[in-house]
Amino acid sequence: MAGPMIHHRTEEFRTVQRETIDGIRDVLKTRNPVVLLASSGTGAMEAALVNLTSPKEKVLVTDLGKFSHRWKEIGEAYGLEVVAVEARWGDPVRPEELERVLDANPDVKAVFTIHSETSTGVLQDIESMARIVRSKGALIVVDAITSVGAERLETDAWGLDVVIGSSQKGVMTPPGLAYLSFSEASRERMERPRQPSYYFDMKRALLSFEKGDSPWTPPIGLVMGLHEALKMIKEEGLESVIERHARNARAVRAAVRALGLEVFPSVPAACTTAIAIPEGHAEQIRKHLLDVYGIQIAGGQGPLKGKIVRIGHLGHYFESDIFTVVSAFESTLLDLGLIDSGGRGVEALFRQFHEM
Amino acid sequence: MAGPMIHHRTEEFRTVQRETIDGIRDVLKTRNPVVLLASSGTGAMEAALVNLTSPKEKVLVTDLGKFSHRWKEIGEAYGLEVVAVEARWGDPVRPEELERVLDANPDVKAVFTIHSETSTGVLQDIESMARIVRSKGALIVVDAITSVGAERLETDAWGLDVVIGSSQKGVMTPPGLAYLSFSEASRERMERPRQPSYYFDMKRALLSFEKGDSPWTPPIGLVMGLHEALKMIKEEGLESVIERHARNARAVRAAVRALGLEVFPSVPAACTTAIAIPEGHAEQIRKHLLDVYGIQIAGGQGPLKGKIVRIGHLGHYFESDIFTVVSAFESTLLDLGLIDSGGRGVEALFRQFHEM
Repeated sequence: MAGPMIHHRTEEFRTVQRETIDGIRDVLKTRNPVVLLASSGTGAMEAALVNLTSPKEKVLVTDLGKFSHRWKEIGEAYGLEVVAVEARWGDPVRPEELERVLDANPDVKAVFTIHSETSTGVLQDIESMARIVRSKGALIVVDAITSVGAERLETDAWGLDVVIGSSQKGVMTPPGLAYLSFSEASRERMERPRQPSYYFDMKRALLSFEKGDSPWTPPIGLVMGLHEALKMIKEEGLESVIERHARNARAVRAAVRALGLEVFPSVPAACTTAIAIPEGHAEQIRKHLLDVYGIQIAGGQGPLKGKIVRIGHLGHYFESDIFTVVSAFESTLLDLGLIDSGGRGVEALFRQFHEM
Repeated sequence: MAGPMIHHRTEEFRTVQRETIDGIRDVLKTRNPVVLLASSGTGAMEAALVNLTSPKEKVLVTDLGKFSHRWKEIGEAYGLEVVAVEARWGDPVRPEELERVLDANPDVKAVFTIHSETSTGVLQDIESMARIVRSKGALIVVDAITSVGAERLETDAWGLDVVIGSSQKGVMTPPGLAYLSFSEASRERMERPRQPSYYFDMKRALLSFEKGDSPWTPPIGLVMGLHEALKMIKEEGLESVIERHARNARAVRAAVRALGLEVFPSVPAACTTAIAIPEGHAEQIRKHLLDVYGIQIAGGQGPLKGKIVRIGHLGHYFESDIFTVVSAFESTLLDLGLIDSGGRGVEALFRQFHEM
């Protein structure tokens, strides 16, 4: 990314773009065509929704945290009738519940959901959800922004119609570039009337990318960065990358429990570990960690503000990074008098890493 | 940009973002609030249009080349009634013509136009257009993507309601980040019903930026790059930067004419020099320049394909860069037998730079 920009209407850039798209298809496990989009992940969510719905149509969303709730907001911004299947923040939506609501709303033709909900640290069972949604003849659109490269994700095997990711997070590139894969059924849907839009016109974008082109000026530097990051994933091996995320997440959870704290989500995702924190201490912990140990972790959002902290381990995190953050976290708890003696956290971390 | 990413919900990033916005306001010569948007310039155009129009409303666009024509396409994508004031490719729209059409369409409440149309190399008289549009009580929205930092642009003094720029071009940062400034009148317009949209909701974005925040994950690296580029402009001085662009453009035009060729646009912009090329030679010239001299120049688009070449000089171009490209261009003409003897072009360039 620090190299000179190359012009986007050249064979050189076309090659970079084609290889980047191939790399994305590899991490999404799909043969579906992929669109690159200069926008945050939210823009890509909107792109999926406007291209797969008509005005006033009824859609179903799963609402289990800040990011999945965004599907509802986008749908309502377009005047859609949005049926939300909710879960308590910290839980996933149960596939049986999704099925029940789908049965009660047979006119729903598209379901918009999320793989890993980072605001609560929850992982959803997308494989089961997709099976249900497909059996009802609807399309399933999955925000996989924080699961790509971190969780098992089988776009084609599970039959996911649209999968959305972005350049940051698991694919380790600065933010500003999003991508979407489109199944044949989703592409057929685009032949019918849809919401108005221009920049997010995915039919036009698919045609353009099919020719090795791009409809608008691409974020050249970010595409070049993602190109390199995807090479790194390929070199490490996608399965190894996902297993590394799983190991890191299991180790952090073991440490959290050894410290006498609770892992907040009932089904934790590998991207982040959300930890329930006794009232009044979350911001204190975050501030101390940053001021004294130079480590930044996230707090809770919305209703979880002040109730949880979140330790991120998504992307280029290896065992030593996990020791760095967990040891500092444990030191912070000790410094603040929230635990009496130290060492149990890192011991549990070590033992989990060594599967002892 | 090659430094480590900083998290966007931190004071450190807020400072960078605030200073970047201040820098943009300086180059746009405005006290209006500015929104940063992760998208190409086209996305920012759509953002302006969806926030300032209601479904089925009548709008006016100027249509004088590939990029200004995009306003028409975006308007039509939203089902607006689009009145287009056209000019021959190579000419600007005359302000009197704009006035005539506005008088004939008193129900037009917004005019979408362009400052410099790079597909033809034309500069428009936005100051006069804005005076007319304002006198009719309509809003004026200006795509200044290739004029920011290259042409005199007085957002407040001319009364421009929305001005759109992007990170590449005159502000010398890789593409992927756009920005828009909004006048008070344009912000009032947003209080009334508008087109559906979510990612492009500028009212929400303005509120968020007012608090030093951003509605979506910003393209952090690009904001950091733009922050630095705007500092460079400030150090050189905006007036000097614009005068440098004007000098470079005058010098290239003088060289083109000395080579017996024609500057294509009737009113040339400073960002690029479009040169009329005898039929059949444009692609040959471009290929030779690239293959033999390693210099890439643009060709014509749409109806101008094969009829013009365009030498870009927008952004970080100094006298030596201009000598590099013009001498290679002149060598190419000589190599291809399109001129009999060489030296006249660079001589004219030198004399124009020295105002001899």
